Amino acid sequence: MPRNLLANAEGVQMVDKRPADLRVAVLGTGLIGGSILLGLREAGIDVAGWDPDPEAVSYARQHGIEFFERLADAVAGRDVVVLAGPLSTLPDNLAEVAGHTDPGCVITDVGSVKAPIARYAQANGWLDRFVPGHPMAGSEHSGLTAADPTLFDDAAWVLCPQPGAPLAPFRVLTALITTALKAKVVPLSPETHDDIVAMSSHIPHLLAGSLAGSVARSALRQGVLSLAAGSFRDGTRVAGTRSARTVDMLTHNRDAITKSVHLAQRFLADLADALERDDVAALTAAFDEAHGLRQELMGRDLQPSAERFRMDALGADELDFLTRLGAAGGHLTACAVDGDTVTYTALRPAS
Amino acid sequence: MPRNLLANAEGVQMVDKRPADLRVAVLGTGLIGGSILLGLREAGIDVAGWDPDPEAVSYARQHGIEFFERLADAVAGRDVVVLAGPLSTLPDNLAEVAGHTDPGCVITDVGSVKAPIARYAQANGWLDRFVPGHPMAGSEHSGLTAADPTLFDDAAWVLCPQPGAPLAPFRVLTALITTALKAKVVPLSPETHDDIVAMSSHIPHLLAGSLAGSVARSALRQGVLSLAAGSFRDGTRVAGTRSARTVDMLTHNRDAITKSVHLAQRFLADLADALERDDVAALTAAFDEAHGLRQELMGRDLQPSAERFRMDALGADELDFLTRLGAAGGHLTACAVDGDTVTYTALRPAS
Repeated sequence: MPRNLLANAEGVQMVDKRPADLRVAVLGTGLIGGSILLGLREAGIDVAGWDPDPEAVSYARQHGIEFFERLADAVAGRDVVVLAGPLSTLPDNLAEVAGHTDPGCVITDVGSVKAPIARYAQANGWLDRFVPGHPMAGSEHSGLTAADPTLFDDAAWVLCPQPGAPLAPFRVLTALITTALKAKVVPLSPETHDDIVAMSSHIPHLLAGSLAGSVARSALRQGVLSLAAGSFRDGTRVAGTRSARTVDMLTHNRDAITKSVHLAQRFLADLADALERDDVAALTAAFDEAHGLRQELMGRDLQPSAERFRMDALGADELDFLTRLGAAGGHLTACAVDGDTVTYTALRPAS
Repeated sequence: MPRNLLANAEGVQMVDKRPADLRVAVLGTGLIGGSILLGLREAGIDVAGWDPDPEAVSYARQHGIEFFERLADAVAGRDVVVLAGPLSTLPDNLAEVAGHTDPGCVITDVGSVKAPIARYAQANGWLDRFVPGHPMAGSEHSGLTAADPTLFDDAAWVLCPQPGAPLAPFRVLTALITTALKAKVVPLSPETHDDIVAMSSHIPHLLAGSLAGSVARSALRQGVLSLAAGSFRDGTRVAGTRSARTVDMLTHNRDAITKSVHLAQRFLADLADALERDDVAALTAAFDEAHGLRQELMGRDLQPSAERFRMDALGADELDFLTRLGAAGGHLTACAVDGDTVTYTALRPAS
C-alpha cells in the first residue's frame, strides 16, 4: 500500500499514512455507524466510537469497543471522522468536529441526502476536508445491536468530490472504504446523488408505505395478512423501518422526490388503465420494460479499467473522470497514490 | 390416520383411503405443479406427472419421476388430480379430466384466480368433486427445474368449499395438503379469495412493475442500477417474473384489482402531497399505519382451536365455520374424519 495518499497539492499537510494506519472516529453508532465501527475494527484499524445514547455506550464497552463520553475526546488526534448520526444532527456535528480537529483531519458523513450538507460545508469553508458520503446499505433493523461488520461488502458507497476543493480527502476515503470495508465507491455530485436515491431508495419507501398502509385501512386486512406471500412481503419490507426515520429521510430529499414520484405514479396509472380496458398488448409492453430493468439489475455487464492522473492543483481531469464514471453507473474498486500520480481502478457498464 | 376421509353423505362413493395411500396426478409441472409433484413424492405418495412440454417430460424421466405422454393415461385410476397448468388452460383441462375419471375422483387446481373456474365448474355440474384451490407460494423462477419439494412448507393454501356442494372432497384435500405438503389450508369463498389476492399479490405486482418500469424510462437509469440497495431490490423483485405470466394473472382478476388498486394509488398520492407541503405530522401518521401492518405481518398472534362437526347432508354449520375462519385470517392445520364426525384443528388471530 503506497504512503502519502493524502498528498495535497495545495500545500495543506494532511495525514500521511497507509489506510491501515489511519486513526478513525465514528460519531453515531446506529446500524450504519455501528457497522462501520465494527468493520474497521475487524480490518485492524484503530477506531473509536461516540454516541449520545447511554445504552450504546454501555453496550459498546461491554463488547470491548473503544468509546468516549465526550465527542471532543472521541475525535482528538483522529485522521478521519465519520459523522453517522441522524440526518438532522449532521450540520451541528460537522461544525463541532471541524472546531475540535486540525485542518489535516478528513471528515465525511453517511447521510442519505447530500446536497444540503454539501452546501452547508461549502458556505463554512470546510470542503477542503469534508467529503459528503452515503453508503447504500441497511436493513429494517436499527441500532448498534444490529450492526454487522460485513454490511458494506460489495455495497455501493457514494462519495462526492467537489469542484474547487482538493481531491486528497476523497482519495484517502476511497482507499479506506474500498480496502477496509470492501465497498464500491461511486463518485457523484451531491445533486445527481439526490436525484438518483429519490428513485433508488425514497420512492421505494413511498410505494412500500402505500401498499402496507392501504391494506391497513382495508376490511380485508386479516385475509391479506393470512395470504401474504413473497410479493407482499418484499413489497412492504421497508415499511418495517421506524416511521420517524423514514419521514426524516424523505423530507430532507423532498425536492428530488417530488420531481420523480410522478413517474412511478404515471406508470402505475397507465398499468391500471390498460388493465381496466383489458389491453393485453399495452400491459405486456409495459411489464416487458419493467422486466428488462430488473434483469439488468440482477446482472449488469461491467468492464474493468484503470485511470492514472498526475495530481495537480486543479485536478479538473480527475474530477471530470470521477463524476462521469459515477453518473454512467460505474464505480471505483481501488485508489492508489505513488509519488505525484494517483491510479484509480474502476468498473463501468459495458454499453 | 383415520380412514374413510371421503365419506360422502350424499351417497356418492368416493375414495376411501388414508392420505398416504392416495394415488395423485399432477397436470402441468412448472414451478408450482413440479413442486407439488416432488413434495408428494418425498412424502411417499404415489404421484404421476403430465406436461405438454417435451423438455419437462425428458427432465422428469431423467430424474426417475413417473410421467405420462397422454393426459388420459396420467389420470387413469387416480384418486386426486391437481390441475397446475397456466390459468388459461384450466377450464379445458378440468373438462378433460372430468371426462376421463370416475365421479369418485377429486379434482383441484392451483390457479391464482378462483371465481371464474368456480363458476365454470358449477355450470357444468362438477362442484361435487372439484374444489378450487390456490397455493400461495412461488418465486421469480419458473419451470420443473426450479421446483422445490419444500416450497409449500408453512405456506398458505386456499381451498374453496362451495355452498350446495358436498364437503367430502374439501376434507380429503385438506388432509392431504396439511400432512404431505405441510401447508396451512385457508378456506375462502372464490370471490373473497379474489378480492384478497388482488391486494396481497396482484397490486404488489403492479407496484413492482411501476417502480422498475419508471426507472427503465429515466435518464438516471444506470445510476439507479448502480446505487440500488435493498429497498429497490425488494420493491422490484416480482418484476423478474415473465411478463406474459404476470399479465395472464392480472387480466384474469381484472375486476377485483380494478376495485382495489385506487386504494394504493390514493395512499401514494396522499403521501406525495404531504411530502410536497412538508406536512411531517401527516407523513408520520400515514407511515405509522403502514408500519403497524408490517409489524403484524411479521408476527401475528394466532390461537389454536379444534372444531368438530357431524357430517350430514347439508354441512351448513361446517361450511359456515370454514368460510368465517378463512375470512378472519385463520387457517386449518389438520382435518381428521372418524366415523360420522370430522374434526378440524385451526389457528386464528387472537383479537
